[in-house]
Amino acid sequence: MKINVLFSPVSVNELYFTGKISVVIDALRATTTIITALENGAKEIIPVSTVEFAIKVSGGMFGWQTLLGGERNTKKIEGFALGNSPLEYSSDVVSGKSIVLYTTNGTKAIAKAKFSSELFICAFLNISALAKHLAFLNYDLEIICSGGLNNFSMEDSVCAGKLISKIEKLNNDLVLSDSARASRALSKSFGRNILNMMRDNEHGKLLIENGFEEDLTFCSKLNNSNAIPYLNGKAIKLLPDNINSFQSGPDEKTD
Amino acid sequence: MKINVLFSPVSVNELYFTGKISVVIDALRATTTIITALENGAKEIIPVSTVEFAIKVSGGMFGWQTLLGGERNTKKIEGFALGNSPLEYSSDVVSGKSIVLYTTNGTKAIAKAKFSSELFICAFLNISALAKHLAFLNYDLEIICSGGLNNFSMEDSVCAGKLISKIEKLNNDLVLSDSARASRALSKSFGRNILNMMRDNEHGKLLIENGFEEDLTFCSKLNNSNAIPYLNGKAIKLLPDNINSFQSGPDEKTD
Repeated sequence: MKINVLFSPVSVNELYFTGKISVVIDALRATTTIITALENGAKEIIPVSTVEFAIKVSGGMFGWQTLLGGERNTKKIEGFALGNSPLEYSSDVVSGKSIVLYTTNGTKAIAKAKFSSELFICAFLNISALAKHLAFLNYDLEIICSGGLNNFSMEDSVCAGKLISKIEKLNNDLVLSDSARASRALSKSFGRNILNMMRDNEHGKLLIENGFEEDLTFCSKLNNSNAIPYLNGKAIKLLPDNINSFQSGPDEKTD
Repeated sequence: MKINVLFSPVSVNELYFTGKISVVIDALRATTTIITALENGAKEIIPVSTVEFAIKVSGGMFGWQTLLGGERNTKKIEGFALGNSPLEYSSDVVSGKSIVLYTTNGTKAIAKAKFSSELFICAFLNISALAKHLAFLNYDLEIICSGGLNNFSMEDSVCAGKLISKIEKLNNDLVLSDSARASRALSKSFGRNILNMMRDNEHGKLLIENGFEEDLTFCSKLNNSNAIPYLNGKAIKLLPDNINSFQSGPDEKTD
């Protein structure tokens, strides 16, 4: 099982992902938000790569069952129902709804990797559940860090490294690329205390400055969810439980 | 003094570097080759980003004092006098010559960063000398890893991290970006034995496969040179010794 990590999707084109199994990470905050929304009963998340397309897509859907969500410069977009804070995506708000989501890096990374044969969504919340599923699938993987400023994001790279370490515990026949080995090393150097790591990082600092400190606390929770979101056509949905039935035992809260 | 690292120059455009102080690293092998050629008496290195341009540029120069050097897929290009192995660039071959150099990643990175107000060349060989000069300049820095397969190169990132650690010993007022902190951590995780790190890496393995194992030994030497190559117009030359006169004491062979 070969694993490669892209520290940013910016430098590859869409066709790079054709036929590959991909995992997209934007731990602060898009992929955490997607996991949370789906766990809280959202019907689906439709990721889009421009604000204009978000508005166009939502206009073609039934208004009462669709919500527009997303951010620009960390803040909710004018006219949108929701921002990009996972705390906004509570059951009473999202249950049964389709959510059209635009974010600066995360949904763009998903849109770029749309030709993958399978595309999964990862954040610190669901590392353990997803690692079990990926080890069971036993296919080569492309892990895509959505990246940020300067096309590198510490938290996404650390999250990728933790996912790799977890898969490695279940499958000792991994072949890691240089970037995959680097991610695993970074998760050891910076991943002991995820919240502190986020607080010290460029993106975390910007979120705190803009009043989103609680989001860091939420996004830093490890293995708090068994949800495995995947891209099904143009929408992200939860993998049905029966597909995960091989996953037994309680999830670890620490690694 | 702010320091940022780009793990690959692919995702930024040329104008990104306008007015910046840049350092380009392609430890295996282009920047090691440039340092070696200039130390061995080459008059200048003219980095180019396409083979066609290499041939065009060399055609406009005096044949007897110009050499074409470079590689494709690690191997010497047909019709070129030299490949990209630093061992080929000995005094008897390069002394007094202008060398037009094309390599897959290194010279492309240099060409991309050509609008930098200052551009320096770094490899493991000259980390200590260059760190002293950069700490003396005390300007913000962009360190550009030329990258490789999948736009990440372990050896370039480790070299960037070692350069940062060395500057940090001379200037304790550094502000590091996430990628700069990641590089410093990677140099601690993987940089204890540079030769072994190179042997274990994607690019190192490919070079060994293609018969260039001796290049790894040469390129892994730490602080073996006081040369500081810099881009002067369209050519790379050595910084004159008098500009480095503040550098006193012997260079360390280890860090």
